[in-house]
Amino acid sequence: MPEASVRTDPLESAGLAARFRATRSLSEALVEPLSEADATIQSMEDASPAKWHLAHTTWFWETFLLRDHAPGYRLFDGDWPFLFNSYYEAEGERILRKRRGLLSRPTLAEVLDWRRHVDEAMERLFEDPACAGLVELGIAHEQQHQELLLTDIKHAFSKNPLGPAMWPHGGCIPAEVSHAPEWYEHPSGIAMIGHESEGFAFDNEGPRHRVLLEPFALAGALVTNAEWDAFIADGGYGTASLWLSDGWAWVQRMGIAAPLYWRDGEQFTHCGWAERDPEAPVTHISYYEADAFASWAGARLPTEFEWEAVAALGHDPAGGNQLDGAGPPLPKGSHGLFGDCWQFTRSGYLPYPRFKPAAGAVGEYNGKFMAGQWVLKGASCATVRGHSRASYRNFFYPQQRWQFTGLRLAMDT
Amino acid sequence: MPEASVRTDPLESAGLAARFRATRSLSEALVEPLSEADATIQSMEDASPAKWHLAHTTWFWETFLLRDHAPGYRLFDGDWPFLFNSYYEAEGERILRKRRGLLSRPTLAEVLDWRRHVDEAMERLFEDPACAGLVELGIAHEQQHQELLLTDIKHAFSKNPLGPAMWPHGGCIPAEVSHAPEWYEHPSGIAMIGHESEGFAFDNEGPRHRVLLEPFALAGALVTNAEWDAFIADGGYGTASLWLSDGWAWVQRMGIAAPLYWRDGEQFTHCGWAERDPEAPVTHISYYEADAFASWAGARLPTEFEWEAVAALGHDPAGGNQLDGAGPPLPKGSHGLFGDCWQFTRSGYLPYPRFKPAAGAVGEYNGKFMAGQWVLKGASCATVRGHSRASYRNFFYPQQRWQFTGLRLAMDT
Amino acid sequence: MPEASVRTDPLESAGLAARFRATRSLSEALVEPLSEADATIQSMEDASPAKWHLAHTTWFWETFLLRDHAPGYRLFDGDWPFLFNSYYEAEGERILRKRRGLLSRPTLAEVLDWRRHVDEAMERLFEDPACAGLVELGIAHEQQHQELLLTDIKHAFSKNPLGPAMWPHGGCIPAEVSHAPEWYEHPSGIAMIGHESEGFAFDNEGPRHRVLLEPFALAGALVTNAEWDAFIADGGYGTASLWLSDGWAWVQRMGIAAPLYWRDGEQFTHCGWAERDPEAPVTHISYYEADAFASWAGARLPTEFEWEAVAALGHDPAGGNQLDGAGPPLPKGSHGLFGDCWQFTRSGYLPYPRFKPAAGAVGEYNGKFMAGQWVLKGASCATVRGHSRASYRNFFYPQQRWQFTGLRLAMDT
Amino acid sequence: MPEASVRTDPLESAGLAARFRATRSLSEALVEPLSEADATIQSMEDASPAKWHLAHTTWFWETFLLRDHAPGYRLFDGDWPFLFNSYYEAEGERILRKRRGLLSRPTLAEVLDWRRHVDEAMERLFEDPACAGLVELGIAHEQQHQELLLTDIKHAFSKNPLGPAMWPHGGCIPAEVSHAPEWYEHPSGIAMIGHESEGFAFDNEGPRHRVLLEPFALAGALVTNAEWDAFIADGGYGTASLWLSDGWAWVQRMGIAAPLYWRDGEQFTHCGWAERDPEAPVTHISYYEADAFASWAGARLPTEFEWEAVAALGHDPAGGNQLDGAGPPLPKGSHGLFGDCWQFTRSGYLPYPRFKPAAGAVGEYNGKFMAGQWVLKGASCATVRGHSRASYRNFFYPQQRWQFTGLRLAMDT
Repeated sequence: MPEASVRTDPLESAGLAARFRATRSLSEALVEPLSEADATIQSMEDASPAKWHLAHTTWFWETFLLRDHAPGYRLFDGDWPFLFNSYYEAEGERILRKRRGLLSRPTLAEVLDWRRHVDEAMERLFEDPACAGLVELGIAHEQQHQELLLTDIKHAFSKNPLGPAMWPHGGCIPAEVSHAPEWYEHPSGIAMIGHESEGFAFDNEGPRHRVLLEPFALAGALVTNAEWDAFIADGGYGTASLWLSDGWAWVQRMGIAAPLYWRDGEQFTHCGWAERDPEAPVTHISYYEADAFASWAGARLPTEFEWEAVAALGHDPAGGNQLDGAGPPLPKGSHGLFGDCWQFTRSGYLPYPRFKPAAGAVGEYNGKFMAGQWVLKGASCATVRGHSRASYRNFFYPQQRWQFTGLRLAMDT
Repeated sequence: MPEASVRTDPLESAGLAARFRATRSLSEALVEPLSEADATIQSMEDASPAKWHLAHTTWFWETFLLRDHAPGYRLFDGDWPFLFNSYYEAEGERILRKRRGLLSRPTLAEVLDWRRHVDEAMERLFEDPACAGLVELGIAHEQQHQELLLTDIKHAFSKNPLGPAMWPHGGCIPAEVSHAPEWYEHPSGIAMIGHESEGFAFDNEGPRHRVLLEPFALAGALVTNAEWDAFIADGGYGTASLWLSDGWAWVQRMGIAAPLYWRDGEQFTHCGWAERDPEAPVTHISYYEADAFASWAGARLPTEFEWEAVAALGHDPAGGNQLDGAGPPLPKGSHGLFGDCWQFTRSGYLPYPRFKPAAGAVGEYNGKFMAGQWVLKGASCATVRGHSRASYRNFFYPQQRWQFTGLRLAMDT
Repeated sequence: MPEASVRTDPLESAGLAARFRATRSLSEALVEPLSEADATIQSMEDASPAKWHLAHTTWFWETFLLRDHAPGYRLFDGDWPFLFNSYYEAEGERILRKRRGLLSRPTLAEVLDWRRHVDEAMERLFEDPACAGLVELGIAHEQQHQELLLTDIKHAFSKNPLGPAMWPHGGCIPAEVSHAPEWYEHPSGIAMIGHESEGFAFDNEGPRHRVLLEPFALAGALVTNAEWDAFIADGGYGTASLWLSDGWAWVQRMGIAAPLYWRDGEQFTHCGWAERDPEAPVTHISYYEADAFASWAGARLPTEFEWEAVAALGHDPAGGNQLDGAGPPLPKGSHGLFGDCWQFTRSGYLPYPRFKPAAGAVGEYNGKFMAGQWVLKGASCATVRGHSRASYRNFFYPQQRWQFTGLRLAMDT
Repeated sequence: MPEASVRTDPLESAGLAARFRATRSLSEALVEPLSEADATIQSMEDASPAKWHLAHTTWFWETFLLRDHAPGYRLFDGDWPFLFNSYYEAEGERILRKRRGLLSRPTLAEVLDWRRHVDEAMERLFEDPACAGLVELGIAHEQQHQELLLTDIKHAFSKNPLGPAMWPHGGCIPAEVSHAPEWYEHPSGIAMIGHESEGFAFDNEGPRHRVLLEPFALAGALVTNAEWDAFIADGGYGTASLWLSDGWAWVQRMGIAAPLYWRDGEQFTHCGWAERDPEAPVTHISYYEADAFASWAGARLPTEFEWEAVAALGHDPAGGNQLDGAGPPLPKGSHGLFGDCWQFTRSGYLPYPRFKPAAGAVGEYNGKFMAGQWVLKGASCATVRGHSRASYRNFFYPQQRWQFTGLRLAMDT
């Protein structure tokens, strides 16, 4: 791990420009251990090449900030938006998602040139208050892609029988679970859910609104690898009655018998195959698996509202094991609800009352995905510290598990 | 339509035995217009042959009532449970769903013999109060399969280029929409949602619980074919910004440009191809289409809670155009929220707080499907009158549209 | 087996009209044991419903004889050619092959009416010498569909877990193998291959031409079930070196470990599951399996030219176990090369030198299939006696095995 | 194009060692214009990454020569055979073919190190006469992969919307067609087919044997782009009667309407998109297209035997436009049968009489592919000069067209 790697805390009081620069630097620091080939390959349609992440985030700044708000700005290369637009229909046609791994050109060096060009051009926009909201969005967007870059390259490396390592040691690994308190108890009542006015949030975190909660308890600790081993030993993957119907079909069809990246007592990490820590949180599980485990444990998953209501009671969203820079996370002493892994809720990813997507193409950012996905809360060891908050709504399809996904149990009281 | 067809109203004060007999008779009356071949074919994995519905419902009675509760009862044929178990894992292996259409044996006559055998054996269980709940469940189950039988055979006939008719006229066709009132206004407040203690309900309708509602309005009328024509004319199927991302991918991949069963000014019905009534509710649409239409109309779909809160204010669940017997529905004079078509809500099909599936194999009835599906409310022209109620939760995947599915708009107030 | 079943020998000196009538009768006799539902189902895209075979053969007569050659003839139903045209592009669009099993209408009775109508109309064409060739083609065509009807319904019944029987006993089962002589020796030289001028033959059997043969020997007996059991016992299905690359991929992907219709010591027959006769020829194997077996046995498959050269030396093409009527075949005393099962050759199905397809739509009968298929020679227990001849070229794709396919070894000498 | 690129003529009298070195150098020269990322990507299952070709050919030498014949040789890396074995079952398990494009490691530099290591170790084997045959095989093998490397990277680049160029100009492009003579006439008679004893040949080119030919004529010129344009203009792709049944299904399913790499008046080349020369041979067509064109032209494809019989009459197998080194081919003045593009024959790829695969793992080289493929003769502009000969049998599946495939007509006389 290079000593020079950037340590950033976007929650600190640093100005927008400084946070922009730190974010951009971090993206590049993350790909430093990668060869040009590493940065080009794509191991499945859900994942994208590292180089593509570098380019797509740059396209985002060039398109929504420079093109739209910097008079006289000219595109670095007019053919590239077709390559690096992800899914914004309002921005036109684009290359098929599954073909992103065929883009050996432009080269990594060309993409890095583009980044410098865009970064320089961005400098004159920081003074424009009309752009501040979009700059915040762009920072948050690039932070999300930093996490995806890390999980995507991990997936790609896992498909290589040589089991290559991105870092010699350290890397994104959840820290051991602390078991105090055992449960967070929460009474019945009306909770305020969603982002409050101050600070940046995505459109899908609002509007803030009232939700009626029944009394419940949320586990103080994440479910661990050891607990998951017990689930397996008890025949969890072979017991139909524990599973949702779609989950059971998925388990059968795909021959699923363990979390992703498990083999014997090991798991695949950014440092290659490594011994599995029984006391660390289980990660890389699907919603189906999380739900089945909860059934087996005689508990259930929390709703996103329950989770948020507990989180709002003073948990530090920059706590836990998170990404501090391009090197290994620095574990914090005590855990709260955040960090280590994203936590499945039993809430479908649906709009809040009176939700309206943002205007323009960026309105496609969140709203159009509100079908078939599930809300996850918290933050993972691959989430840059400061990126998340209590109202944050991450979302994935129920069979996806290449993210650092885990679970925290809940129960009625 | 045979004059002898059965007219039943399960909501009347008739006893359990009478309702059992009427329900069983209706199933058989529905297949009277079908040949043995009609009753055997299966046009897609989602649909089942009519004969299979006759047999599966009989298996349900034989398994959960007679086998478990009638001392000394012997199975009519020990090989048949493998053929006619639908999805009850606790009841063992079964034939692949997509192979139901290969079962030319047992013959229709053999299945009807089985029905008679089971019906006779059932007679001695009606006096047993311990069985009353399961009998109610069995009746509701068979009523659901009556609706599926009708929508499945409609789908199968639609695939025959000859466009065969099941009935010469009448049949399951939604009635013209009444537009009074324009909107049902509903204030903010806490609503009680879910089934109350009296009368039968499925386990997924409970537990009854409190939900906090913001003020809203629910349309007095269903969206009509004429309104859908306007959506098409305005390029609705080609405007990405109206669609959920999954919906847009579905539209593109499948070449969707109209509701199922539409061609020119016609639609396919149980009576073959027929002119489309512009004033009748649109039906056979997917969730994706319903959601896109609502966006286009500047409105939204209601939540299941909003719909139920309005329905609880005195609408007649036996109103509207519903199935009265094996013949054409008899339209009622005024419409409420029920009848004509199932109405998509924007609510994912998820468990209510403190939901527990019923014990035993019948616990697989509803709970294990709580992933990836959407709640629909109301009742359709193919729902037997009296089957539905305000708390009823129908559910389908977002791309499915061979049911009589439609929509009713909502908006924030 | 109905006593009234027709016994026909089309090779006898009977006139064309008599052979037409006998052929038409046999088709109907074959479906007598079937219910309307049996005759409607389709178990895979390769197979067609029995009713469809009855209708398609009738369409053939109506189209190529009556429509084209009987002045004033009017189609029985103008919508039916779309349903019952198999693959004749020149005859226009048609229903997708995989949807033939959805045609519950027209009914079996309607199709039988059509057959009578066409049969009556045909009577006036027998005197027309210009039609004789097409009538011969139509008879041969309907005989081919009789064999397909039998193999298709066998496949459909095999998919029913009840294992239904079409006949109580008898049926199409290869007879025990006779082992004299052990080998037919054949010297080097030029052989004349292809049909000679007299008698009917398909266009693909000509032109007759010279082929240079090297010395070889052709096995006197078909490979038996017992020999196949030895191949299995020796790990034949798990030994990559025995297999063609495509065959090995097929074995792996499909989990193939035995001929089709085998389970334990049994095989599926038209009479349901039955004990397997070790001395009977193995049937229902693919080209890949035949080739692997030959490699295992240290031999090879014959070319189609080698087989034909031996067959031309006086073997009786109406010998062996073949279809005599709608009942069980009557085994003949001694075997030659014909009967019991079609025999794979190592010859690709390609055109003979100077081959020209017949003019018009019937030119699509054979020529357009000359890609990717393999020639089989002989006749099977489901081939009507008299249908085959030394020059006959049957052809299937290398993975297909629902026909009565087997093998006879060859070797260089 | 680097001036230093190697020009080699393996047919010259140079010794085995010199030809080995020249062949190895050429492989490396071919990848010089490629970035590490270019060399890593895989655009379809049929194609392999350039780096993989470099590695696989090295594996071939290491496995079949060094491991088996160089006492004391130790594998460069024991994990790599799993990655770079192509299809040799006898050599054990290997990575799935479709995953070759995920191998960003080992790096290109590591693979080049491996090549040097192996090349040095090989030096001591050239004196061993027992190895000469395997060395010849290894050279021919690596030459085949040079051609594949070029066609695979062309395919990969064609999928990049930027249309990257491997070379600024020149590259592999067929030369203009010479039309003299118009036809090669050939009389009836017995021809000797297959490789004669002198010089290297693959096992599938023998044994040499007699074939009886009927009189025919083989076109003196390859079919040109202009002629193909006429086929298109005449509706060739939309006329079912011209096509084999499988070909017609392929055209419909894939929406084929032109050769691969065509758009408007351009075609994709190793130098990017370029104007199409009407007088150059058409390339990148499937067998289905070649056969349909021949039907349209009132001609047919030659058999492999006809082609070889003409080629044996003195045509220069090192003639035509072929690969001379890593730069643009140097067109020769006059054409014979060889060069520019591989030419489809109507012969299935089947074993010659008395064919026996070579012993050991290299016996998997050719024989196991003798199913479902078609023989092509000649050589293409991407075939290294000297690699081909009259008896050479190239083979591909009928739908494959990413090779430089074209056609030369034939007719009966």
